[in-house]
Amino acid sequence: MTIGSEDRALATAAALDASDPLARFVDRFVVDDPELIYLDGNSLGRLPRATAERLAELVRTEWGSGLVRSWEHWIDLPAEVGDRLGAALLGAAPGQVLVADSVTVNLYKLAMAALDRAVATDPARRVLVTDDDNFPTDRYVLAAVAARFGGELRIVPSDPVHGPDPERLAAAVGPDVAVVSLSHVAYRSGAMADMAAVNEMARAAGALTLWDLSHAAGSVMIDLDGTGADLAVGCTYKYLNAGPGAPAYLYVRRDLSDRLASPIPGWFAAADQFAMGPTFDPLGGVGRFAAGTPSMLGVTAVDEGVRLLAEAGIESVRAKGVALTSFLIDLVDDRLAPLGFEVATPRDATRRGAHVSLAHPEAQPICEALIGQAGVVGDFRAPDRLRLGPAPLSTRYAHVAEAIDRVVALVEAGGHLAPEASAGSDH
Amino acid sequence: MTIGSEDRALATAAALDASDPLARFVDRFVVDDPELIYLDGNSLGRLPRATAERLAELVRTEWGSGLVRSWEHWIDLPAEVGDRLGAALLGAAPGQVLVADSVTVNLYKLAMAALDRAVATDPARRVLVTDDDNFPTDRYVLAAVAARFGGELRIVPSDPVHGPDPERLAAAVGPDVAVVSLSHVAYRSGAMADMAAVNEMARAAGALTLWDLSHAAGSVMIDLDGTGADLAVGCTYKYLNAGPGAPAYLYVRRDLSDRLASPIPGWFAAADQFAMGPTFDPLGGVGRFAAGTPSMLGVTAVDEGVRLLAEAGIESVRAKGVALTSFLIDLVDDRLAPLGFEVATPRDATRRGAHVSLAHPEAQPICEALIGQAGVVGDFRAPDRLRLGPAPLSTRYAHVAEAIDRVVALVEAGGHLAPEASAGSDH
Repeated sequence: MTIGSEDRALATAAALDASDPLARFVDRFVVDDPELIYLDGNSLGRLPRATAERLAELVRTEWGSGLVRSWEHWIDLPAEVGDRLGAALLGAAPGQVLVADSVTVNLYKLAMAALDRAVATDPARRVLVTDDDNFPTDRYVLAAVAARFGGELRIVPSDPVHGPDPERLAAAVGPDVAVVSLSHVAYRSGAMADMAAVNEMARAAGALTLWDLSHAAGSVMIDLDGTGADLAVGCTYKYLNAGPGAPAYLYVRRDLSDRLASPIPGWFAAADQFAMGPTFDPLGGVGRFAAGTPSMLGVTAVDEGVRLLAEAGIESVRAKGVALTSFLIDLVDDRLAPLGFEVATPRDATRRGAHVSLAHPEAQPICEALIGQAGVVGDFRAPDRLRLGPAPLSTRYAHVAEAIDRVVALVEAGGHLAPEASAGSDH
Repeated sequence: MTIGSEDRALATAAALDASDPLARFVDRFVVDDPELIYLDGNSLGRLPRATAERLAELVRTEWGSGLVRSWEHWIDLPAEVGDRLGAALLGAAPGQVLVADSVTVNLYKLAMAALDRAVATDPARRVLVTDDDNFPTDRYVLAAVAARFGGELRIVPSDPVHGPDPERLAAAVGPDVAVVSLSHVAYRSGAMADMAAVNEMARAAGALTLWDLSHAAGSVMIDLDGTGADLAVGCTYKYLNAGPGAPAYLYVRRDLSDRLASPIPGWFAAADQFAMGPTFDPLGGVGRFAAGTPSMLGVTAVDEGVRLLAEAGIESVRAKGVALTSFLIDLVDDRLAPLGFEVATPRDATRRGAHVSLAHPEAQPICEALIGQAGVVGDFRAPDRLRLGPAPLSTRYAHVAEAIDRVVALVEAGGHLAPEASAGSDH
């Protein structure tokens, strides 16, 4: 598709919106300012209307009236919502997904557990492998875990657009490797790793895989069980629309869970929680990776976000994500390339997630001015990337076309060079 | 005070309520069923009206409208609320308290950090000390940390009513001890440890103290700075009324924080979070013990709970807690002792927190029947304890008198022996 003008782009967008089978889902989200174009669903997803209502009901009735008695049903919710999340979005059969803690803490728990087991089996196996474009928390946590075991975090260079090279990755995974940990969709470039291929490569080398699904869950098809993934973590405040700092989740393959022990044995992971006995006897299955008291507001918001995605169907969500990002990339080629923008996300739709990264030397002031002056919310990622994440459930094609218009208008007028541009946010 | 009859108890309660300087705070909480007597504020505190409103506003406006732009102010909230909590309730100057994660995870982070430092300084110092009546999560986590360092968790026997014996505790703290970790107020008995004396004893032995303040914060006077405490953690869903699974907090003494490293180096603890550089460079101060993205609903609920307690003043809250538990104990002696109940909490008010534990061979069915049939919510703790926690801000003396009436009526009628008693909850 080539689009010759602003008018043609808007007409194309209108046609795409008219035939969008998920169009009705846009109205399932709270929108106070119809002029605001929100393309940062890859950072913090919009608020579903149902979530606002259910949280109010939870606070007022379950906490306010039910009080401590509500734990009777709350206590099972992290595992129940984990099961629903696993079935709807992760390709995980029941009993393998738990909503708990943050991505950082879950990644730590699973990496430590994997290393404990690896070293006990083979003391020479204490290397973790990741790539240099992985999310900061992942690299920091994996490095700390490696150091604790006197091991090494082996960091494979990544292509800044296409992600880790499969051959270089395979070359790094020798008999000394315990865990290969990658993001399924890269936070900056949006590049999607081949989960099945990496799982197979790691298994052949005797290593476990530990996936970060934060930018993948709710945006692309994931089949943890089917591709033979071992371990995974992910956040819920992006495409799962569960709100700022909502709890994360973790996945432990069924036949692996009873062979792993959490490094942080909390009372919510005890087989008989209220026996409060002298020693820790863990639950079977993924439940043993719980720690302290889970946030019921958080778990409930995850539940609503998952229900919404399940209703839409992840196949349809993925199809719209491909179409939205393809439309966006076409418009960038046509109208933003002349202004110095470069697509820094794979052009092959099967190799990317649901956000698009654009490289521009002035990406940071442009991002700030877009937010502060133009009513277009994307985000900046160092050193020179503008990320635009048109979350499939809450974004219309018209939003994408209008956003590009506003970028063109801003940059052509030099609006990002004005002093007030710095008033915007880049969080 | 001796009370001869039900009528005299109600009259005494009415007089106490009439002169209660905190009486007006009872109406600051949501109460849907005025017949329900809620004496489980030591497990899950009641919902403050202001919290319900502020959470709705946060969801609808800050998340729903502000979207990712709200991180501009959200990002500082865990430290800001930590400072307010420290000032109002913990005796902690700014920069030492952070709202984050769960008690379990925070205890793990601080115990690991303390052991890392201890072993680096003196490889022979790898013992942790606690007592056998400490909360399960604390014992489980401390044992796991000790095991990871090839050390030992030295468990001092506790008196089931009065808590750890100071002499036995001191005898256990030799030159091989890195950390002494106790609950300030014991979860079951309500016994309060002498924080100043334990801090001094530990310091003299070259060990750090790590306090669990979960049952103490918001119920008793705490002076972490003044008594020379080193490290502390605590929950917010009890007397801080922040709701089910609200985030916990941690305290690290100012001059200690830069000498300790978190075992879980997450991106929220990085000195320049959005530089996302190749290596982890931690924040100075307590902020380095952050991990992943904090729950903004949770942190905000903590803020409201702390503001309410700060408005009442912890001295007044403590005075009412002493008066309520004294009144309760008097009534137990007078009316429940003949039915086989025994006070299993220190009678010296300076040695207990704000809840009272009663031993009874049939405590579990009695607790279930009280909840299911009599509209009195307390909780059961193994093996034979009924805990009654009249949270000072949300409880009237009349609630205590009426609760005792209902216990007498239930047990005299044998209501707890009926089959339907098991329909109640003991969470």
